[in-house]
Amino acid sequence: MSNVELAQLVMKRIETLAGISEEPDRLTRTFCSLAMRRTNELVGAWMREAGMTVSEDAVGNLIGRYPGRDERAKTFILGSHLDTVRNAGKFDGQLGVLIAIACVEQLYQNQTRLPFALEVAGFADEEGVRYQTTSLGSKAMAGIFKEQDLKRFDSRGISMAEAIRGFGSDPDKLSQARRDPEQLLGYAEVHIEQGPVLEKKYQPVGVVSAVAGQTRVELRFTGQASHAGTTPMALRRDALVAAARFIVAVEACARDHPGLVATVGQIEARPGASNVIPGEVSLSLDVRHHSDSVRGAACARLLETASQAEQQGVTVDWEVAHEVPSVPCSHELSSLLAKAARQHLMEVTELTSGAGHDAAIMGEITPVAMLLVRCKGGISHHPDESVTTEDVAVAIAVMDDFLRLLANQRAPSPAKKAA
Amino acid sequence: MSNVELAQLVMKRIETLAGISEEPDRLTRTFCSLAMRRTNELVGAWMREAGMTVSEDAVGNLIGRYPGRDERAKTFILGSHLDTVRNAGKFDGQLGVLIAIACVEQLYQNQTRLPFALEVAGFADEEGVRYQTTSLGSKAMAGIFKEQDLKRFDSRGISMAEAIRGFGSDPDKLSQARRDPEQLLGYAEVHIEQGPVLEKKYQPVGVVSAVAGQTRVELRFTGQASHAGTTPMALRRDALVAAARFIVAVEACARDHPGLVATVGQIEARPGASNVIPGEVSLSLDVRHHSDSVRGAACARLLETASQAEQQGVTVDWEVAHEVPSVPCSHELSSLLAKAARQHLMEVTELTSGAGHDAAIMGEITPVAMLLVRCKGGISHHPDESVTTEDVAVAIAVMDDFLRLLANQRAPSPAKKAA
Repeated sequence: MSNVELAQLVMKRIETLAGISEEPDRLTRTFCSLAMRRTNELVGAWMREAGMTVSEDAVGNLIGRYPGRDERAKTFILGSHLDTVRNAGKFDGQLGVLIAIACVEQLYQNQTRLPFALEVAGFADEEGVRYQTTSLGSKAMAGIFKEQDLKRFDSRGISMAEAIRGFGSDPDKLSQARRDPEQLLGYAEVHIEQGPVLEKKYQPVGVVSAVAGQTRVELRFTGQASHAGTTPMALRRDALVAAARFIVAVEACARDHPGLVATVGQIEARPGASNVIPGEVSLSLDVRHHSDSVRGAACARLLETASQAEQQGVTVDWEVAHEVPSVPCSHELSSLLAKAARQHLMEVTELTSGAGHDAAIMGEITPVAMLLVRCKGGISHHPDESVTTEDVAVAIAVMDDFLRLLANQRAPSPAKKAA
Repeated sequence: MSNVELAQLVMKRIETLAGISEEPDRLTRTFCSLAMRRTNELVGAWMREAGMTVSEDAVGNLIGRYPGRDERAKTFILGSHLDTVRNAGKFDGQLGVLIAIACVEQLYQNQTRLPFALEVAGFADEEGVRYQTTSLGSKAMAGIFKEQDLKRFDSRGISMAEAIRGFGSDPDKLSQARRDPEQLLGYAEVHIEQGPVLEKKYQPVGVVSAVAGQTRVELRFTGQASHAGTTPMALRRDALVAAARFIVAVEACARDHPGLVATVGQIEARPGASNVIPGEVSLSLDVRHHSDSVRGAACARLLETASQAEQQGVTVDWEVAHEVPSVPCSHELSSLLAKAARQHLMEVTELTSGAGHDAAIMGEITPVAMLLVRCKGGISHHPDESVTTEDVAVAIAVMDDFLRLLANQRAPSPAKKAA
């Protein structure tokens, strides 16, 4: 099949998967759900059609294996996740798994074996919707799954251990899902961009240099609630005015640091009446950058900025709720990916991924690379999520060439047809 | 009794009224409630002790009448409201009614009759808690009660007409509650300040020059929700950043216009997730000033400021939800009140009342004056509301002298003892 035909097949499968949901009339597919069971069965069948042997690990990750020329050769993993958010778009995660299968299908049809085994991983959880903790699938594979998370309960009171057992997997054997880094060559993931940069640059795909580190802070500004009509401006301790100054400063700070993104996404003002000056405001701050030191410096500056509210009688609590370092992609793998991309594009865009991905988790045990695919308007986590067949064809072509280049690098003689 | 003894009596009665509530363990007394029935009975008994004849009008206002020397003389009304907010303080409204009764008690004990009849009005509703529409009592008395409000329902599904009937009053005869302006000399109200100005100036009482006009606006900022990690700063249309710029500008604008107060008390950002740029923000704006033209100019400037968000791709809806003009107090009555106050204070503070009051409604049919009493920390609408006995004694002395000056003005010969 040509890359365009493969892309059409991927798009047809995207539509089929979009129909497998745990909610009527919208796509929602969470960890260890019945919808995920049906998805693993269907995607497993597609893996078999592409010449792979199929298994599930102890956390419910679907794994297709396409052996290399040499039984003892190491393994390269292609993958992404098969779960979704609530009322999801149909490309997030799934596109990466289906493109990976298409690449193997291409090799299988051409009867090509590589000098390494190829696996396709369909991770059981990346979005974290059911248990409010993300990337359970890749964390199990990377050996950084937290055992205590098995005791978490979902909204219906089902523990994670029960859910995994009900799925047919085995929570007591989670450690067996861990892959031996010695046996791995690397991991590559295709994912929709979930942002507007490639669209703005008229580029179908881009190569990720790093998955950004992230700091999430919860701030509380405490002033004094009082009557909006009777309290003169000079006697106010308005927590919302202080918070507003901070929000304006967050935007200015981000613009001062190239590549930094900083967002206040949640805000609550109390008591919250039109005729009462807010005495307390809570807000969330999300800061991301590919350089941990730039992110750290920006956070320090923002803490200082927030503290200036104390000059207006408003105290500030600053609590770091979440902090993950940047995960750089492998220079070697990314260079190969860029080289592959240059065979199809005049210029290759290098991007930081501001969103977290399974690749950032897999980076714990093996070199990683990521290819992002343009999505319409940068819209994601929404039914309007949209990717063109043409862009999918480009992504398949780039990944196909990437595997070829990797094979050549591993075995200087050209890849040979299997006997 | 001395003014201090009268003040002690007022404070004792304040405590008694604080125990008459429709909710256990906190003070809540709404329009036509059983707690209001008990209050009217008790306050009516105090009025009778002070030599007044007592009646209730068609909306449930409690009215005590102390006749003048001449049966045909006009009537001067002293009053405030007897209802409260939920979880109220015990001084708001009630203090004004009890001080008015104390003043009449003083006249009665001294066997003094004035050249005009004196009435004390305990209004049945000012806070508007039960039917979300304020000042039902004084509106009925001023003849500006809206008949269609009788069809409003409370949270338990009881219509206002039913509630008035259940209270023993007559919603079909509301027009009879209206007072003939020709028969009125004026209205004066004592009320707690509900703000911090008198406390800051070390003044027990202050004279109101006007009840401020008010504009309440509901604004909506609409940008584009998108991923906080993947949307570069330059490509954002962040509704919350636009709203924050506006909130900072509101504060600056108010500081530029002496006497203006402007407040954003409510804010909601949607979708409201820490990792999503807000696409839509709603907020409330409350602007007050004693000059309607200053308030109008400030609102025009703020509308222009809000509209600047469109340069960042954020559209703005501006809807005026509520607009009431300023009500100036009577120059003549306020001068008398200030003259009375100067007999007890080195200097007399003149204030704009930023809060709405029954006096502003009564201003529709008769000249009005208001005396505000210092309250601790400016706190009101809260159980911590606090006024000292000493300040109540000053307020009683000032009102007593005010009535004496008014009597002298109406009948140049000194007020005589009743026969």
